[in-house]
Amino acid sequence: MEVMNTISQLKQFIYHNKEQKQSIGFVPTMGYLHEGHRSLMQKAKSECDIVVLSIFVNPLQFGPNEDFEVYPRDTERDLQIAQDMNIDVVFLPTVKEMYPSEVNTKVSVSNLTSRLCGASRPGHFDGVSTVVMKLLNIVEPDKAFFGQKDAQQVAVITQMVFDLNMNVEIVPCPIIREKDGLALSSRNVYLNDEERVQAIRLFEALELSERWIGEMNVTTEVLQKHLYAHISSAPLAKIDYIEILSYPDLQPIEKTNTVTQILADKEIIVALAVKFGKTRLIDNRIYTNNTIKVKKQPDLGGIVYV
Amino acid sequence: MEVMNTISQLKQFIYHNKEQKQSIGFVPTMGYLHEGHRSLMQKAKSECDIVVLSIFVNPLQFGPNEDFEVYPRDTERDLQIAQDMNIDVVFLPTVKEMYPSEVNTKVSVSNLTSRLCGASRPGHFDGVSTVVMKLLNIVEPDKAFFGQKDAQQVAVITQMVFDLNMNVEIVPCPIIREKDGLALSSRNVYLNDEERVQAIRLFEALELSERWIGEMNVTTEVLQKHLYAHISSAPLAKIDYIEILSYPDLQPIEKTNTVTQILADKEIIVALAVKFGKTRLIDNRIYTNNTIKVKKQPDLGGIVYV
Repeated sequence: MEVMNTISQLKQFIYHNKEQKQSIGFVPTMGYLHEGHRSLMQKAKSECDIVVLSIFVNPLQFGPNEDFEVYPRDTERDLQIAQDMNIDVVFLPTVKEMYPSEVNTKVSVSNLTSRLCGASRPGHFDGVSTVVMKLLNIVEPDKAFFGQKDAQQVAVITQMVFDLNMNVEIVPCPIIREKDGLALSSRNVYLNDEERVQAIRLFEALELSERWIGEMNVTTEVLQKHLYAHISSAPLAKIDYIEILSYPDLQPIEKTNTVTQILADKEIIVALAVKFGKTRLIDNRIYTNNTIKVKKQPDLGGIVYV
Repeated sequence: MEVMNTISQLKQFIYHNKEQKQSIGFVPTMGYLHEGHRSLMQKAKSECDIVVLSIFVNPLQFGPNEDFEVYPRDTERDLQIAQDMNIDVVFLPTVKEMYPSEVNTKVSVSNLTSRLCGASRPGHFDGVSTVVMKLLNIVEPDKAFFGQKDAQQVAVITQMVFDLNMNVEIVPCPIIREKDGLALSSRNVYLNDEERVQAIRLFEALELSERWIGEMNVTTEVLQKHLYAHISSAPLAKIDYIEILSYPDLQPIEKTNTVTQILADKEIIVALAVKFGKTRLIDNRIYTNNTIKVKKQPDLGGIVYV
């Protein structure tokens, strides 16, 4: 495994491998790797000849009062995990390498970023789409792998690639969870014991949704109220948003229709963002067709418990 | 020569030629080709194995009250010129092919677009950078050729390519002029006889600038006044802007310093936009070093009279 800090090093490596007709898989991360990242690397390894993992905590996607400075970092451990996963190259640039001067050019995906985390975190998705554009231009991968936990991010990147005719396939990968259902996130490390226990309410609410939709045939309005009641029963939970939107276009849907009526026409996402203390957690589930079950993800077969 | 209307056709052609290790040159245009475009094609042919010319009047870069609908078009003549120039492929997409749905994703280069045409034409450069990004991703050229008449456009595209780590070299090419000095533009066809005669004032003012700077050692403030006086002496001229900025970063410069003092440190651009009737003309000249002469352009040797 090679660790590269500069763009020119990596470009040379990519150039050489493209000459050899090797397909390139790319897993962009902010490091502090967990089983979710590991599943992305595994999928990339299974589908591509060469896999590049990037570790870059991108300042552009953090707001002024967010956790850029304290975002968890452990490069040594990350490199060990990458090595165990047989990653070919870890790209580990400095902020200066990625942004040698003031950031003048931004990529914005407007229709998908006004709601959910886009509303809570102004500028966040411009930062994401801009850095992903840069990384995709540097790595020139055939496929890039993203976790579905950040469902809005996946939608934004997929739209950007389509709109700008980029030459890469975006592969969404299923959410990976702890045994008790908590979606894996590098930020889970921030949770204290009490918060960690209560954080399970997000997963519970998503699980219960299936019954509320399937057995009680709720409207989206009522579903939202149930979700709200279940999560807010955790004393430490501060709800940022609980939204039910069409997917992947993230548009509002008729509140007075039942969810099953809506599912006859389109997919929906139930998306949650909840703070426990200083830690903001997100989770989601995508419902499809007019059957009340979790959308099956390609290959890895739906939600995976680790 | 092949004429292609679809992105998939063109991508297939590009893929095939990249397999054969052919270098790709790209000349993006809005058609109604003139000697300026011809010089870009010539340079592309001399530097690349395969040359793709695109003809696409991009609605995204026109304002609501601008001339998108009436922008001059003559595809048949354009194809004849492309054939004469031994162009390999002309890419001639419909608006629907380039923008199959609402435009959600935009590329913005903020620092370079607040002045000059960016100030006069809000949203214009977002439209330019977005369509150029799309075209560059479709054609994947080694080099792309742009005319220096649109000096701000060249600066914006060059900055975008740098900021987003795009894999293409932007080649600026010198302004091509009519015998009397009028910079070539597809929009010149709009001018009536009287306007056409008076339009020469832009070139005259740029020529005179050299004397004002070199012989009279004017400050930028005085240079601007002289330019203003000379151009506005044409009764039909309505000045949009006359600006003297640093180049290529397009920042304001100290008005009370003489131009020669400023040229000791940096390059400057004298940029003009003037309306004659409904026709908006632009022209510019870049001054470099502390010598008062026109900046030499690579290969084609400065301003070329046709």
